[in-house]
Amino acid sequence: MSRRRPGAAVVPAGESLDPGDWDALKSTFHDAVELAIDHLRDIRQGPVWRATPDAVKARLGARLPRKPEALDALLGVFAEDMLPYGTGNIHPRFFGWVHGSGNLAGGLGEMLAALINCNVGGRDHVAVHVERQVLQWCKEIFGYPAESSGILTSGTSMGTVIALAAARNARAGADVRMLGLAGSPERLVGYASSEAHGANAKAFELLGLGRDALHLVPVDADFRLSLPMLTEMIAADRARGCRPIAVIASAGTVNTGAIDDLAGIAALCRAEGLWLHVDGAFGGLAVLTPEFVPLLAAIAEADSIAFDFHKWLHVPYDAGCVLVKDEAAHRAAFADRRDYLAPAQTGLAGGEPWFCDYGPELSRGFRALKIWFTLKAHGIERLAEGIARNCRQAQLLGRAVQSNDDLELLAPVSLNIVCLRFAPAGLGEAELARLNEAIVVELQLRGIAAPSTTKIRGRAAIRVALTNHRTTTEDLAILVSAVRRLGKELLSAQPARPRVLERERR
Amino acid sequence: MSRRRPGAAVVPAGESLDPGDWDALKSTFHDAVELAIDHLRDIRQGPVWRATPDAVKARLGARLPRKPEALDALLGVFAEDMLPYGTGNIHPRFFGWVHGSGNLAGGLGEMLAALINCNVGGRDHVAVHVERQVLQWCKEIFGYPAESSGILTSGTSMGTVIALAAARNARAGADVRMLGLAGSPERLVGYASSEAHGANAKAFELLGLGRDALHLVPVDADFRLSLPMLTEMIAADRARGCRPIAVIASAGTVNTGAIDDLAGIAALCRAEGLWLHVDGAFGGLAVLTPEFVPLLAAIAEADSIAFDFHKWLHVPYDAGCVLVKDEAAHRAAFADRRDYLAPAQTGLAGGEPWFCDYGPELSRGFRALKIWFTLKAHGIERLAEGIARNCRQAQLLGRAVQSNDDLELLAPVSLNIVCLRFAPAGLGEAELARLNEAIVVELQLRGIAAPSTTKIRGRAAIRVALTNHRTTTEDLAILVSAVRRLGKELLSAQPARPRVLERERR
Repeated sequence: MSRRRPGAAVVPAGESLDPGDWDALKSTFHDAVELAIDHLRDIRQGPVWRATPDAVKARLGARLPRKPEALDALLGVFAEDMLPYGTGNIHPRFFGWVHGSGNLAGGLGEMLAALINCNVGGRDHVAVHVERQVLQWCKEIFGYPAESSGILTSGTSMGTVIALAAARNARAGADVRMLGLAGSPERLVGYASSEAHGANAKAFELLGLGRDALHLVPVDADFRLSLPMLTEMIAADRARGCRPIAVIASAGTVNTGAIDDLAGIAALCRAEGLWLHVDGAFGGLAVLTPEFVPLLAAIAEADSIAFDFHKWLHVPYDAGCVLVKDEAAHRAAFADRRDYLAPAQTGLAGGEPWFCDYGPELSRGFRALKIWFTLKAHGIERLAEGIARNCRQAQLLGRAVQSNDDLELLAPVSLNIVCLRFAPAGLGEAELARLNEAIVVELQLRGIAAPSTTKIRGRAAIRVALTNHRTTTEDLAILVSAVRRLGKELLSAQPARPRVLERERR
Repeated sequence: MSRRRPGAAVVPAGESLDPGDWDALKSTFHDAVELAIDHLRDIRQGPVWRATPDAVKARLGARLPRKPEALDALLGVFAEDMLPYGTGNIHPRFFGWVHGSGNLAGGLGEMLAALINCNVGGRDHVAVHVERQVLQWCKEIFGYPAESSGILTSGTSMGTVIALAAARNARAGADVRMLGLAGSPERLVGYASSEAHGANAKAFELLGLGRDALHLVPVDADFRLSLPMLTEMIAADRARGCRPIAVIASAGTVNTGAIDDLAGIAALCRAEGLWLHVDGAFGGLAVLTPEFVPLLAAIAEADSIAFDFHKWLHVPYDAGCVLVKDEAAHRAAFADRRDYLAPAQTGLAGGEPWFCDYGPELSRGFRALKIWFTLKAHGIERLAEGIARNCRQAQLLGRAVQSNDDLELLAPVSLNIVCLRFAPAGLGEAELARLNEAIVVELQLRGIAAPSTTKIRGRAAIRVALTNHRTTTEDLAILVSAVRRLGKELLSAQPARPRVLERERR
């Protein structure tokens, strides 16, 4: 932190918000670079997570700041009060939910995006062209035609809302955009497997279709949507006067990483005239690895796909994308230019089409730049290797679980997710659930590792999602060993830190 | 750029995406800091906007990158191909649409957010507490109670979707979330003025209410929603069996900056049992200036307000917010936790409530940090002074327009927006429209200034929005002089650059 000049307040000069002393300002930026990058370089030495101290929380309950504070002092607050207490996903032993680990090239892109400060809702400027470039790369990844459309989003949840809005309007058989759903003569319904992510049901709710209109199809033994059941359900819904509009297929379910039979579902959707949307939040990108091409190539047949850059491609949060094959349907769901947004043939108001024609947002950051930097700096081959490595690690972990008598594998390992539990003989289901939840909490509290929890067919599982480019096989060994050690410790008469299990037993 | 070591490729070491040479990586970050901050320091010397060259566009049509490229080389590409061709809104003479100008403290926050890489969809970590702090400040600004809820969004468009989803579900008289709108016995309708932003109608479309269900209320001579007309329309709608649910009031319309009679509308909404949502995208924040408190204080009476940080508070794009007074209604519209998102009482899965309970997004970046840095570094008083100054500049510009015989003011200046046209005697409306559109294009192409265009009661206007902390009165003088000079030039027999007018005349 040699560049810091303590007390060099960056006081704006004149009336603008620009600094009076540009060199002092730069100095604070340079200090911030050193601070944050050293933190990342040394990340392995620290705990995966630590609770935010109460004193920090109290300081974050301050009143609206009235007067300026020196920027270097604020950086000091960040260093003390924030940097140590992040989500943990930049640590090699973060295995919770599905979080990407970030990457420094992407961080560089985000810094530059914030400073150049483009609004990518529309108009003609370079950020629009960078986003188009990134979308073109996405089409290449999934085998989408160049004339298909797309837009970057905060993530798959918003991508799903956009895709399903297009599907709803295109397949409703009425002018839903103008008239709403109240005028619909038939109830519009869609389908997803019972293992599909909750974001899909939330999209149905937001779009006014209602959660009940998303019919959940049972899964097979491998947690994949049952195609025969789907076929039956569509026929039954038609018979009782509903209008099926869309099927949502999962390319990697959140619980177990199961990949639905995309080709089979695509054929059914073609035959039935339904919109096929693929939820590829993390798993879709496994199409970059040869092993998963047979399972995922049929994404190219879908009408839309939503996926995240911030998960398995490690772009800093947040960054997702939706692609829509029928550009006209996509645009018809969102384009709406008033007088104050009129396009021009040249000048700043040119640049047709505008991105606000493809989604609900008019103000949009330059999210494309961190993606551009990430893909260019690492190259897709290296990024794909990381995905393949995580899948191999999942297989390895699955075998390690099976080789220990007191561990149990709760679902087949199909992608990058391993659901396990510590299950010594003689414990009932309820006891096992409390014990494994307590193990996960202890792993987090002690900073050893951060898996999350879920339920697999009603059984409480320790869920390990390998979406982390920093994880090594050594990290997996530490996890397995810690799960068993903590399990025994929590079961023993005098646990080292009894409060968690005691609390859970109440 | 003295720190750069040319050719020092930042090649990842080992299998992760981390760099092999951390010092080389830092060096590239330091170079980027110098590059981007020098660009901002010298922004006034360059043109406000330049068209992205065709060669750059062609380079942004490359195939998916396979192999890694050196990060410093990529920074070079950014410097050459991107930095000069931004939206223009960081320049002191950008007056188009409503764009904020950014600020460096916010840029620092965004860089740190990208590197710490938190996911603020939920869980217990410091980013959650920083976002709560920022929301608390928002409540303080608008006089909302501490127990109200809120969430940061990409902007007012998404904030409006969230607020109206809560309003729809709370006032529908049926379980819309579960059953959708198809089951609604009555048609749900809402109201906004004919001058309200198009984002409101887009939200009605997205939510399945339909654009037709947003009834547009005529405005008075000052472009404010007519309260008597609204009262009549509600009664008429009830009489024909519709169910009014919400009124959207504008705190600063996009065309002219008009502020609806918020107190009057709030009283009507209370009497009628309607949800009052305030679209305060930019204008709402004028409540920070004493002059506008009488017009804007009634925001505190609204059920929800959406506004942007990236406009008049100059936080880098994108950053908006929605506040909802009835926390339960807000949460009831979005909360939905599946097994894999189960909360815990302690550990990383603690931190109740999660932000994903208040909106459609599960993955969310650490947007709060750039806001925290902006508000702390400048203090709200200085930020408010900037808002007040822009309003004074708008009055000044309005008077300058009126003092020139060949300029015409098309709407009263009520906030920060000035709608004018170059209108020498003897030209018809169509000719004036073509001429003024050509003036705006020429201002942009020549890099002099960047206003946008709109129509005011059918007349083509040059629209100048003063949402720029770098603008000085000198910049306004340059604008006025350039509008008149270009107007005369374009009208003359031998225009200096005739192509634009010629093209427009086709």
